[in-house]
Amino acid sequence: MALPPNVSEEEFASALSEFAQAVGDEWVFSSDEDVALYRDSYSIYWGEPEERVASAAVAPANVEEVQQIVRVANRYNIPIYPISTGRNLTYGGAAPTLSGSVVVDLKRMNRVLEVDEDRHFALVEPGVSYYDLYNYIQERGLQVMLDVPDPGWGSPIGNSLDHGAGYTMAPFRDHFGSRCGIEFVTAEGEIVRTGTGAMPGTDTWQDYRYGVGPMIDGLLAQSNFGIVTKMGFWLAPMPETFLTGTVTVPRYRDFDALVKEVSYLEDSFLTGMPSFGSPAAGGGFGQASPQMAELMQDGWPSVERLEEFVSAQGRPAWSVELRFYGPEEVVRASWDAAKRRFRDRVAGAAFEDGDFWRLPLSAEELATNPRKPLLGVPALEIFATMARNPRTNDAPLEGHADLFAILPRKAEAVHEAARAMSDAYGELGVPPAHHPFSTPLNFYSRAFIVPAIVPTWRDPARNAQSRALYSRLVDRCAEHDWIVYRTNPAFQDQVVSKLSYNDNALLRFEEKLKDGIDPNGIISPGRYGIWPASMRSGRA
Amino acid sequence: MALPPNVSEEEFASALSEFAQAVGDEWVFSSDEDVALYRDSYSIYWGEPEERVASAAVAPANVEEVQQIVRVANRYNIPIYPISTGRNLTYGGAAPTLSGSVVVDLKRMNRVLEVDEDRHFALVEPGVSYYDLYNYIQERGLQVMLDVPDPGWGSPIGNSLDHGAGYTMAPFRDHFGSRCGIEFVTAEGEIVRTGTGAMPGTDTWQDYRYGVGPMIDGLLAQSNFGIVTKMGFWLAPMPETFLTGTVTVPRYRDFDALVKEVSYLEDSFLTGMPSFGSPAAGGGFGQASPQMAELMQDGWPSVERLEEFVSAQGRPAWSVELRFYGPEEVVRASWDAAKRRFRDRVAGAAFEDGDFWRLPLSAEELATNPRKPLLGVPALEIFATMARNPRTNDAPLEGHADLFAILPRKAEAVHEAARAMSDAYGELGVPPAHHPFSTPLNFYSRAFIVPAIVPTWRDPARNAQSRALYSRLVDRCAEHDWIVYRTNPAFQDQVVSKLSYNDNALLRFEEKLKDGIDPNGIISPGRYGIWPASMRSGRA
Repeated sequence: MALPPNVSEEEFASALSEFAQAVGDEWVFSSDEDVALYRDSYSIYWGEPEERVASAAVAPANVEEVQQIVRVANRYNIPIYPISTGRNLTYGGAAPTLSGSVVVDLKRMNRVLEVDEDRHFALVEPGVSYYDLYNYIQERGLQVMLDVPDPGWGSPIGNSLDHGAGYTMAPFRDHFGSRCGIEFVTAEGEIVRTGTGAMPGTDTWQDYRYGVGPMIDGLLAQSNFGIVTKMGFWLAPMPETFLTGTVTVPRYRDFDALVKEVSYLEDSFLTGMPSFGSPAAGGGFGQASPQMAELMQDGWPSVERLEEFVSAQGRPAWSVELRFYGPEEVVRASWDAAKRRFRDRVAGAAFEDGDFWRLPLSAEELATNPRKPLLGVPALEIFATMARNPRTNDAPLEGHADLFAILPRKAEAVHEAARAMSDAYGELGVPPAHHPFSTPLNFYSRAFIVPAIVPTWRDPARNAQSRALYSRLVDRCAEHDWIVYRTNPAFQDQVVSKLSYNDNALLRFEEKLKDGIDPNGIISPGRYGIWPASMRSGRA
Repeated sequence: MALPPNVSEEEFASALSEFAQAVGDEWVFSSDEDVALYRDSYSIYWGEPEERVASAAVAPANVEEVQQIVRVANRYNIPIYPISTGRNLTYGGAAPTLSGSVVVDLKRMNRVLEVDEDRHFALVEPGVSYYDLYNYIQERGLQVMLDVPDPGWGSPIGNSLDHGAGYTMAPFRDHFGSRCGIEFVTAEGEIVRTGTGAMPGTDTWQDYRYGVGPMIDGLLAQSNFGIVTKMGFWLAPMPETFLTGTVTVPRYRDFDALVKEVSYLEDSFLTGMPSFGSPAAGGGFGQASPQMAELMQDGWPSVERLEEFVSAQGRPAWSVELRFYGPEEVVRASWDAAKRRFRDRVAGAAFEDGDFWRLPLSAEELATNPRKPLLGVPALEIFATMARNPRTNDAPLEGHADLFAILPRKAEAVHEAARAMSDAYGELGVPPAHHPFSTPLNFYSRAFIVPAIVPTWRDPARNAQSRALYSRLVDRCAEHDWIVYRTNPAFQDQVVSKLSYNDNALLRFEEKLKDGIDPNGIISPGRYGIWPASMRSGRA
């Protein structure tokens, strides 16, 4: 059995027994079999000494039990690591940042406390999954639309606290950005409610998020400043219809105009999440095709060479699928307006109508609908896309560590990132996943993401190669001034170290905040680079 | 000359001389005439000992000078009170929360650092006013739309840091909510950049606001955790057109359905800020008319009595003006969809087309346009509306202290608030401003505001009455579980004391944060109830 750092076996046994008094014997897990369930099955250190593993887990039933757990942890100086549903795959799963931590598993706190159909919000506990919330809404026939990540088995609270995102309209697909009102337990065991929740009896906790005075909500995401026990979310009213249309532009250099016009439409709230692609290259994302490898074999091609390639394909260089949500009158007018604006701005822009559905779809219609996340319906189909590369018939990935670089919405930045990432892969002898027609993701409406999906394995040698690649990509992104917006514990110190403005002043400021509210440093030591004072010297 | 608490005349003189070394003699103000300019001309304690007055002011030219000021303040234990342009009228103006503080006047830091027309953002310094930013955009012909409060002479940074709001589309009219990226100087003199600004050389500071790790931005609003020296804002792309339309519903009890449908439209991003009114009552807001006084003379009328009143007027009970921004196809379709949906939901709903303008309007068109703030154009016309009550021909207000209660978007809550406020006025012998047809404001798209505008005077006796009224309104709101979202220093302790959940756990948590980062408590002691440890016992 792993032990927390600097805690003896006797002390630990005594702490576990106090945890058991708080939550009941059956909700303290310390056998090897039980604790193994909290391993990160995508760990890039799987089976190696550096793999982050828990010493035990404890599952409280309610906020009072969370308070008791925190008090015990303080008495014994035991690091605790709260998780919601533990589904944060590629970002660490249920495993703690610091080995030996006790996982505080909030899965039993799974009540949907409220969904308001007129004011369009939900209030939930951390153990609620997107499926749970969706089912609650369906059972009651409430006319609101969720925004879900893929996959849908995770927790709205857990996902938003790691800055996760989804697929519908801009303000909703930023899951932390659409929160309204938080309850959390401090490292000293106090219950705090943010926003208007600080007023007992409030009926506006999920309507107005600032309350009076500063808003501390942001402290609770990607951090270790408290244990969130309730959180509100703004939901979209159910749109009457959903319409899609695809725009193509002929030339390589038209990507610039395409990006600018999509930014106009999105920032005007005329469209939902756009999906970019490259018909000429045969799709956007993932392993570069043999054709792309050939195109890059003499180095990164010139613009002239790329235009020739496009011409030779006889297909448009770029595409974007636009998605519209709203009344039929409005979605059709929006698509008309988009077509008019593209025609005025890009010679040769062409258009293809896509889906048109009246919402909500029935359960029968949804059963075979391949686009559930676009409609705020939780799904697990994403796992199929990782299961096997249909082009190469490769074996499925055992896991992956995602690296998402945040870029400005500029064509040149997308090309620069594709090239920088392709170079990093090449330097390490890994076939590049990026190419001149790589397209960005747009989970956050005001920024682009160029992703790298680095495979992880049960094989230490292959993991070593993946770690080298991931680490080099982090370095390379920083050299180009791009942040990696989210990462797993193996890389959190490295990623945060790149925030080096004024000698890492932001991190030093955050650590002062941490010291003031968690004097023993018990909550999630090291999460996103924030270490308690006693462990700061050991930082990587 | 006022002195900072517990600072001798000699020490203060020495500190002023060090401030002068930092910023130049001419930028330290300590004569009575100069310091008087920092008085709050709307003070509800005007000329009384309790009026909050500065001891001096210092105006740095840049962030390095701000750092030096902070270091001097720490050496001498002098409270400092940063202001942007000092225009925060009704909320304290330029005067500090704690008398004897030195105002740090940031008016000289007035550079518009960037406006990006493709990515729709601005980056500004605190001394930039809405007029400055607007003029910068106009001179360059940039196709973006601001969101402005009334009046427009204030600072985007100052306004957003007090949770100010404007008039256009929902995500933009929440001025703090539309920020992206902050630079601030800590109480210890460090420069910190939030979000991706923490990565030197970033080109996404105004595109992605979370960065990596926690987001500390919220700490800087309505608080005293740092001095903001730069801030980014998301802007709307210039819409092609602007259209308004008014919906009326016939009966008193139709307000419920009206509110629900407006919430649907707004939360779907189909409309901008709605403006509610009551044709039957002859307008919405302000002093109750003689007719309303008569209606209330035997107490709050029954619903039956109110329906009779409406019938007798021969005018609809309620109205809402909807405003649409976007391509002509879309705004017309949105208004059509709104009409269709209202017809399906409220018997007797009627519609009137309003303005239709192609944007941007020319300077000539704007000169005579009475609706500038709806178009994101700064103006000062608001002062005219307070200058004289056209109905009673009363003398103009000398000042006012605004109390804005945050309510859920529910008809019954609006009526309850109007009644509670009317009662509070009546108890103190003040003619009530609220009545059964009072309508809410909707600056924050997901909450209603029922406002009370309490007059302030140069006459201590009349101010005493106003203070009694304001204070009673704060108490009454808390009894009904409504927060007051923003207030001036005279009432900040009272307003924040109402956040009493778990023995004011939120404030106690904030004060721990404050202690960790501002050990001497030099920045804005007492602002929004947050006092440094040394002054906590003296809290009102």
